[in-house]
Amino acid sequence: MQQMQNLQTLHNDALVIGVDVGGTKIAAGVVDNQGNVAGRIQVPTDTSSPEDTLRSIAASVKRVLHDAGSNAERISAIGLGIPGMVDPVKGMSLLAVNLGWRNVSVKDWLERELGLPCSIENDVSAATLGESLYGVGKQQEYMVYLSLGTGIAARAIIHGQLYRGAHGMAGEVGHVVIDPSGPLCRCGAKGCLEALAAGPALAQAALRELQSGKASSLQEYQAADLRAEHVFEAAVHNDALALQILQKAGLQLAYGICLLVMGYDPQLVVIGGGLASEQSPLIASIRAGIEQWRTRAPVFHAMLNVDAIRVSGLQGDAGIVGAAALVAAQRKIVL
Amino acid sequence: MQQMQNLQTLHNDALVIGVDVGGTKIAAGVVDNQGNVAGRIQVPTDTSSPEDTLRSIAASVKRVLHDAGSNAERISAIGLGIPGMVDPVKGMSLLAVNLGWRNVSVKDWLERELGLPCSIENDVSAATLGESLYGVGKQQEYMVYLSLGTGIAARAIIHGQLYRGAHGMAGEVGHVVIDPSGPLCRCGAKGCLEALAAGPALAQAALRELQSGKASSLQEYQAADLRAEHVFEAAVHNDALALQILQKAGLQLAYGICLLVMGYDPQLVVIGGGLASEQSPLIASIRAGIEQWRTRAPVFHAMLNVDAIRVSGLQGDAGIVGAAALVAAQRKIVL
Repeated sequence: MQQMQNLQTLHNDALVIGVDVGGTKIAAGVVDNQGNVAGRIQVPTDTSSPEDTLRSIAASVKRVLHDAGSNAERISAIGLGIPGMVDPVKGMSLLAVNLGWRNVSVKDWLERELGLPCSIENDVSAATLGESLYGVGKQQEYMVYLSLGTGIAARAIIHGQLYRGAHGMAGEVGHVVIDPSGPLCRCGAKGCLEALAAGPALAQAALRELQSGKASSLQEYQAADLRAEHVFEAAVHNDALALQILQKAGLQLAYGICLLVMGYDPQLVVIGGGLASEQSPLIASIRAGIEQWRTRAPVFHAMLNVDAIRVSGLQGDAGIVGAAALVAAQRKIVL
Repeated sequence: MQQMQNLQTLHNDALVIGVDVGGTKIAAGVVDNQGNVAGRIQVPTDTSSPEDTLRSIAASVKRVLHDAGSNAERISAIGLGIPGMVDPVKGMSLLAVNLGWRNVSVKDWLERELGLPCSIENDVSAATLGESLYGVGKQQEYMVYLSLGTGIAARAIIHGQLYRGAHGMAGEVGHVVIDPSGPLCRCGAKGCLEALAAGPALAQAALRELQSGKASSLQEYQAADLRAEHVFEAAVHNDALALQILQKAGLQLAYGICLLVMGYDPQLVVIGGGLASEQSPLIASIRAGIEQWRTRAPVFHAMLNVDAIRVSGLQGDAGIVGAAALVAAQRKIVL
């Protein structure tokens, strides 16, 4: 009964289910029109086939509806954040590499299956919207949201609205080539920011150094188990290798932020995604990197105050809240 | 009487004087509401003091008014494009390094002196607006204009309007650091795109190579006389050194275009400014550079069609037309 009690605390109007679709798990919850979340659940993503993945999404929504009990009738719509290229007007996923999707009619399928209207958008776009409506970016005219996780991408709020560009790809800073001699990115280019500084890249950088004989507390991990979070933990305990990896990544991510600031001249840059928390040593490294770039580049210094770099306050809920926010926002987005 | 006859050809409504203020010369002309220009003049810029520069601007406007004869009474306003940071609401130049200006009340001074309402904006912003209203960017929802001259800067059209950002600096790609070990930029950073690939940088690159003993037809020029245009001419005649310099600059400028495309996801990128003409070997080098980046970076390839790179058709008039366009547009710009 705890979920139902939670739902009772939500604002009475316009309840929506927000669904954050990832390559390994799907998170969903009920969101009210003030960004409050209740009845959070999580299910594994079945990527055996596009239809199986759609069934996983439908299962997540059905579980939320079931947990909501008699409150389910207050839920009027579903919003979904999906990785990759999305056409929100047609309700299609055009390309989602880690789901194995290409031209999948997500909206039609789910609306038939669930009997509720669905809105879909790119997951980072959804999180950006959530951050601008309910997070630290509230009431900012010009905001950039940088998502750091297994991938890296950014989106911008311009004149208070999500900015998509011609293909919904505006802000794809993760696939800017930063180091042409760097590691191969899953996009096919070499040395993209994502291939250098996203979660898997940090773990791989540690592995390469360990294999070349560097001493580190990270040696205790099997190669297949080593994750970015272990690098963070080692850095907190002053492991020299971990600190060196995060220092380099921090400078590269700060450069990515320079690029975003040059493009959008924002009032605020919000860092979110799975790797972002105020206490994370990665955030400390990014802040140090920003300081270095501000010293090196006077124009960047003039355009960005240090206070203008903030960490998302929505944390794990950003994806769910943002996806739910799509339902109302898509009536306003200029596509 | 030729100027007056020219003016007779202009569309009858809303004649405006457009003024393009540069560090060495001021260009002005009469523009109608369809972007036609007549009565073009040019005067040298006196930068002895801020007031002397304002007097040069006023002199350019007075000469256009004088040349217009009885048509002068059809002119209702003045638009000015000014280098550097501009506050169009206060009508002030906040900072213009090559004019020696800081916090100069341009609008008030000129309105007192000339008795006509003045609109001011950054010069590249003005040219971007002109290109989007009357040039190859006509009716494009999402356009980027990249200005190549003694400086490098870009501005974007978003939802059909000039995008300024929080400080009017959105698009300052000229001051993105591309090569941290590169030459010092006038902004104070090392290896900015502008310090590597703007006009003076191309001439300096040629000089450095000549001084290190490289053979080239450019040897005939005195160091102080060598300009980017000479490098272009030598390249047209297959001078190996000139070709090598332009190949490198083309790749760097193409990288700058990648950054702009990542940020704005535009339908069209327009290259303008003093160094841009369809026949220029620099443009050929940029197109070759774009092809290289499209091959290297699949996401950039997906976001930008080669046909989406165009050279400004307004040529020398872009600054004047854009400045004139400010008058009408500033009522619409969201600041």
